[in-house]
Amino acid sequence: MKKKIVILPGDGIGKEVTACGKKILEQVAECFGHQFSFDYATIGHEAIEATGNPLPDESLAKMKNSDAVLFGAVGHPKYDNDPTAKVRPEQGLLKMRKELGLYANLRPIKLFDELLGASSIKPEILKGADILFFRELTGDVYFGERGRKDAGSTAFDTMIYSRYEVERIAHKAFKAALTRSKRVTSVDKANVLESSRLWREVVQEVAKQYPDVTVDHMFVDAAAMKLIQNPKAFDVVVTGNLFGDILTDEASQIAGSMGMLASASIGDTVGLYEPIHGSAHDITGKGIANPLASILSAALLLDISFGLKEESETVIKAVEQTLKDGYRTRDIADASTPHEKILGTEVMGNV
Amino acid sequence: MKKKIVILPGDGIGKEVTACGKKILEQVAECFGHQFSFDYATIGHEAIEATGNPLPDESLAKMKNSDAVLFGAVGHPKYDNDPTAKVRPEQGLLKMRKELGLYANLRPIKLFDELLGASSIKPEILKGADILFFRELTGDVYFGERGRKDAGSTAFDTMIYSRYEVERIAHKAFKAALTRSKRVTSVDKANVLESSRLWREVVQEVAKQYPDVTVDHMFVDAAAMKLIQNPKAFDVVVTGNLFGDILTDEASQIAGSMGMLASASIGDTVGLYEPIHGSAHDITGKGIANPLASILSAALLLDISFGLKEESETVIKAVEQTLKDGYRTRDIADASTPHEKILGTEVMGNV
Ligand SMILES: CC(C)[C@H](C(=O)O)[C@@H](O)C(=O)O
Ligand SMILES: CC(C)[C@H](C(=O)O)[C@@H](O)C(=O)O
Repeated sequence: MKKKIVILPGDGIGKEVTACGKKILEQVAECFGHQFSFDYATIGHEAIEATGNPLPDESLAKMKNSDAVLFGAVGHPKYDNDPTAKVRPEQGLLKMRKELGLYANLRPIKLFDELLGASSIKPEILKGADILFFRELTGDVYFGERGRKDAGSTAFDTMIYSRYEVERIAHKAFKAALTRSKRVTSVDKANVLESSRLWREVVQEVAKQYPDVTVDHMFVDAAAMKLIQNPKAFDVVVTGNLFGDILTDEASQIAGSMGMLASASIGDTVGLYEPIHGSAHDITGKGIANPLASILSAALLLDISFGLKEESETVIKAVEQTLKDGYRTRDIADASTPHEKILGTEVMGNV
Repeated sequence: MKKKIVILPGDGIGKEVTACGKKILEQVAECFGHQFSFDYATIGHEAIEATGNPLPDESLAKMKNSDAVLFGAVGHPKYDNDPTAKVRPEQGLLKMRKELGLYANLRPIKLFDELLGASSIKPEILKGADILFFRELTGDVYFGERGRKDAGSTAFDTMIYSRYEVERIAHKAFKAALTRSKRVTSVDKANVLESSRLWREVVQEVAKQYPDVTVDHMFVDAAAMKLIQNPKAFDVVVTGNLFGDILTDEASQIAGSMGMLASASIGDTVGLYEPIHGSAHDITGKGIANPLASILSAALLLDISFGLKEESETVIKAVEQTLKDGYRTRDIADASTPHEKILGTEVMGNV
């Protein structure tokens, strides 16, 4: 198989971890006789520094022209502490999602048995938890009109959803549920928000086309609580962009660490794969970032964009074996991990 | 001391639990020689059934005319599954918050040592956690313009904050921090939302007036993760209405159960006290609801609205003693609780 992959390292630990993800893809190509060619593109703070634009046209063109994108992260503390900055790394990310039509963000949350001890949640609560989130990614308050009024003393953002946006992500979630335990939980705040009431209406309609799937609706506050109280109550979860942002980060604790979680963003054109962790400037350049989320993102890429199931499973097994052998980066180490098995990013990426 | 208290039971388990909260207030009055008079008012589904209005004017007038309100909960599954319902119990709640000017919702999250085992989070992560949330309660997407367009196929809500709204809640949080460990975490999504950027700007300004308090700013997704990973990293947290709704429900797991958490809503006029749990129709009328959140709400009422510190502490100590003696309602029982110590609502309210 011949494929073009764009590597989009972005900011912070993005570079370190995508280097490991890329290496895995090269190894897979070698072992399984595929031809993967790689190209690099820029985004985020790095791109702003170089060109003034958080998503240069050239980057977008390269991605549109590729078969899949392996992405790192964007963000920089410089902008976080300056609420008045006009150009921000995140704008590049949001523009990319919109321009590539990446409306469905899949975040599988599954705990490797070896990491049962690494979470702050009790092992007996976690064991067996296996959730697949569908976060809507190109709508909601992320893309609605925003601005200031009253001479700058009032600020607003618009949460907004249209029927077709809810329909297409709901279909993706219900289809996935058919291949799993046939349960979908839709999360909204329909007791207060009009956009959530539309969300709930449309999910109820779509549900009728999947009579074998049980659907329930939960308010986002209750879901945030229940996720921690009893994660096994969830299987497929579908939710809007903002609630999905919050709930999936929270759910990372179910997987032991954010450093373990991969995500796939799919939609109209090319698929994009990225860790759910961010740029993590506090640990950038120290060589201690956990590369497994990027490696698992590469596994999702092989599976979803290229249909290479066996290759994808081989990567996941390799990660499993590495954990079984006792190797850990710091974020997933627990008190019982022997010192010599705590590895840096690069070494972890090699084993 | 002579005071007028309005009891506002509302829907679902609201009646059962406020009955226990009221009983405690009566006992306090008797033991400490105060004169508390009680009046009842309606809200929510119950009020809709009786008058068509989720918050009758009479209820509002009674509350405005009182010294404090002890509230239960509103909500009914009937409306939840009907996204097109025009009149909803929650409208009564939101109108009440707005009309009474209850802009600051205080939610103390503290684990009674006796309940260390009842949470899904590991005891060593929880022990010592003590968080005070300030959730803004009369702004944000709860009160912005909302509606439909494109012949109903698009729905929107407006997240909106004005400078003075952020200022007044920030001051409350910083003042509270001065009496605690002098740390404030402000939670927003300033990397995406304009209303969050205004929020952050104003909090940074207010912070300058409290040079002894350290402030940090966290994105809501990171905060949702960190709360579970390391709750001890937080002391005073200040955030907007929607993020506060989600994070405080999530944080209920830090206290072992939602059934333990009280909240105070304060602002321009009378103070209102309520459990953070909702109407919980699934357990309504079964006599198994945990009344401790309502009892602890009564304790907050005594402290904050009446300045009766000793009385308030006596109630908290009584709750502590009840837990020490091994009594539990089901939600906070763990495997080691002997059967005969698992109590119903009424009995728990008596001990
Ligand atoms: C960086 C930020 C804009 C982004 C988001 O909120 O979507 C991130 O948190 C994510 O989840 O990918
Ligand atoms: C019932 C609902 C409208 C309410 C809210 O979202 O504020 C509740 O969840 C709360 O936290 O008091």
